[in-house]
Amino acid sequence: MSTYLNETDAGRRIMRRCDELGSISEPGIGVTRLYLSPQHRTAAETIAGWMHDAGMDARIDEAGNVVGRYHSESGGGPYLVTGSHMDSVVHAGRYDGPLGVITSLDCVAVLNGRGRRLPFGIEVVAFGDEEGTRFRTTLAGSRAITGQFGDDLFNAKDAQGISLREAMIAFGLDPEAVARAAHRPGDMIGYVELHIEQGPVLQAEGLSVGVVTAISGQTRAVVTLKGAANHAGTVPMGMRKDPLLAAAEIALAVERIASVHPHTVGTVGFVKADPGLINVIPGEVSLTVDLRSQADSVRHAAFDELGVAARAIAARRGVEIDIDKILDLKSCPCAPDFVDRIAAAVEAAGTRPLRLPSGAGHDGMAMSTITDIGMIFVRCKDGISHSPEESVTAADVATGAAVLLHFIENFQGKP
Amino acid sequence: MSTYLNETDAGRRIMRRCDELGSISEPGIGVTRLYLSPQHRTAAETIAGWMHDAGMDARIDEAGNVVGRYHSESGGGPYLVTGSHMDSVVHAGRYDGPLGVITSLDCVAVLNGRGRRLPFGIEVVAFGDEEGTRFRTTLAGSRAITGQFGDDLFNAKDAQGISLREAMIAFGLDPEAVARAAHRPGDMIGYVELHIEQGPVLQAEGLSVGVVTAISGQTRAVVTLKGAANHAGTVPMGMRKDPLLAAAEIALAVERIASVHPHTVGTVGFVKADPGLINVIPGEVSLTVDLRSQADSVRHAAFDELGVAARAIAARRGVEIDIDKILDLKSCPCAPDFVDRIAAAVEAAGTRPLRLPSGAGHDGMAMSTITDIGMIFVRCKDGISHSPEESVTAADVATGAAVLLHFIENFQGKP
Repeated sequence: MSTYLNETDAGRRIMRRCDELGSISEPGIGVTRLYLSPQHRTAAETIAGWMHDAGMDARIDEAGNVVGRYHSESGGGPYLVTGSHMDSVVHAGRYDGPLGVITSLDCVAVLNGRGRRLPFGIEVVAFGDEEGTRFRTTLAGSRAITGQFGDDLFNAKDAQGISLREAMIAFGLDPEAVARAAHRPGDMIGYVELHIEQGPVLQAEGLSVGVVTAISGQTRAVVTLKGAANHAGTVPMGMRKDPLLAAAEIALAVERIASVHPHTVGTVGFVKADPGLINVIPGEVSLTVDLRSQADSVRHAAFDELGVAARAIAARRGVEIDIDKILDLKSCPCAPDFVDRIAAAVEAAGTRPLRLPSGAGHDGMAMSTITDIGMIFVRCKDGISHSPEESVTAADVATGAAVLLHFIENFQGKP
Repeated sequence: MSTYLNETDAGRRIMRRCDELGSISEPGIGVTRLYLSPQHRTAAETIAGWMHDAGMDARIDEAGNVVGRYHSESGGGPYLVTGSHMDSVVHAGRYDGPLGVITSLDCVAVLNGRGRRLPFGIEVVAFGDEEGTRFRTTLAGSRAITGQFGDDLFNAKDAQGISLREAMIAFGLDPEAVARAAHRPGDMIGYVELHIEQGPVLQAEGLSVGVVTAISGQTRAVVTLKGAANHAGTVPMGMRKDPLLAAAEIALAVERIASVHPHTVGTVGFVKADPGLINVIPGEVSLTVDLRSQADSVRHAAFDELGVAARAIAARRGVEIDIDKILDLKSCPCAPDFVDRIAAAVEAAGTRPLRLPSGAGHDGMAMSTITDIGMIFVRCKDGISHSPEESVTAADVATGAAVLLHFIENFQGKP
């Protein structure tokens, strides 16, 4: 039985607000709404207004996040935090981030409309920066809330050379006050986020929503291969030291190794041959590797296997190899009882609760350092995200909203 | 027995002149001497001076080539043409081109020093443009001599937007007169060129010189693969349409197919992934293929095999493929009796006559349209060319000079 009286109405209502927020954008195709920009200011004020309408206290915090509180039946906290981010990549869609913010708000609005208060408060957060598009940083919003807003963030610069600290001042914030955005762990009883899947699994499984088990850990590396540049016509095949062919074998090794490990993906997204001419055997080739897995032990084992395979390929081809690990981000598991409670809410919505990892990063990664986290995925068309083509259906959004509301209303008591 | 009295002296003499010509360059590392540049003018006048010193009539022709004639014992032609090009790539070495010009000149100087005339004349040509570096054209010099200097050449522009026609005028040439540079086929009895190998085969075989059988034909193609760009973290391995992995398999197919065909090489020199980000599965990848073979039938068969293999790879991976053949240049065989005569000259120099194709293009490709051609390769260090690192030994140069002189002196009579 649905917690909403009319799910389809809820889906349409949420999507209309996603459209409205999506119209707050830099000019150009799709949505471009960057951290500490005028569009950020307008979006934050719009969301704060919606929060007020839903019976919440709302404020724009010291890092530019919008924090709204719907107090408990006893008039305060602790709070179950829910929400997502309001910033976007360049030429983004309307749902990556805003869908979670607006659905959370809608759940509170439904409770408020019924005059219902829970034994705990609900805090809806619209994080100001998750994508990190403007300053090449990530999770600045949730890092402020978790008390991890450091100098690396303050000193980061955008493409115009404006530092994040300067941009905060221009936005009307006091950088010295950012610590005041931090929440005390004791004030929170958990963090739950609804987000579009940004992948094709739910569509392939025919499911509206999914239950996230963990945010996958990531290893990123740059592999550089040095051979001998030479004339494409004059060197017999057996006398070549061609780094591009070594790179080709390594890319296929990434695929093979990622395929044999559970809940693991591996990608070569970038490759460059130098000098990169049609009639010259390349002298140097670089490629990137991005390896993600639900379990850190699996990811580490896969990366080690890849290193062994790549070095063997390079040695066989007489090519020098350097593997530079540039990122090692550990997996962030969802709290088991959150996973179970979300699964129960999905079942209550009449849907099979598919459990899957999130291969993309989310604010929950920062939030998990101070509280338990859970995530609900909503199916998106063809898994397309970070594109104006991003698309969801009102029915799926309504199911997601029903699951989130069910989770909130049933948060206390046995999973 | 050597035709030279002192081979080592000849080698050193030729190399000193290569050094002298190499000093005529734009500023910067290595040699940069482009067609119709001031350096071209200085080099041409230097070579013409050397021709006069060797008892030749010399002129700078209507296309900027230097043409020197050492007349026959009866005072005229027909002429056996020999030489190479005097232009260079950017940051080139000293031997690619000049070695053939200067060695040819040295052979004439030796004959002239002995007061010896042959039953035929010898024409030494220093072609003004073989590399095509400045105007992105090739063989402009030999195309003028073979009467194929067309509007595509006149209208070609350099990086500054100066047309070849304008550059000719600035150089002091009359573009309308270029047809006068053309030789009548009846005036020539063949064309023989000495050139550095620009490959590693002679070094690997321990040989100073080699006998060229043909200038390999070339097929060049651009392969474009379109898949589905997506998030590197969210798409399971089995649900991807990754054009980069298809490209990797195709690059390895190029290697495999080129390796199984005789005297065939295949190279992927360029690859580009779009969008080319570490955390995005590429949506489109393009790569180039350069396929060369001594025999056109072999090259065509190999290219067809590659097309079948590449389409199968793309189909299996659900990736769209387009193969755009952008060049199909047929093989240019050396005249069999030239090959035999050069082989005999190599044996006379006490060296095993290894026959091998030239994977690089040469002026002989244009010259072969009006007369028989032959080529002598001289070993160069590690096969390195188009680089200031280009290196030859005086001993190898001396052997090359002895072979060329032997070939010239014994040109008439049975091979």
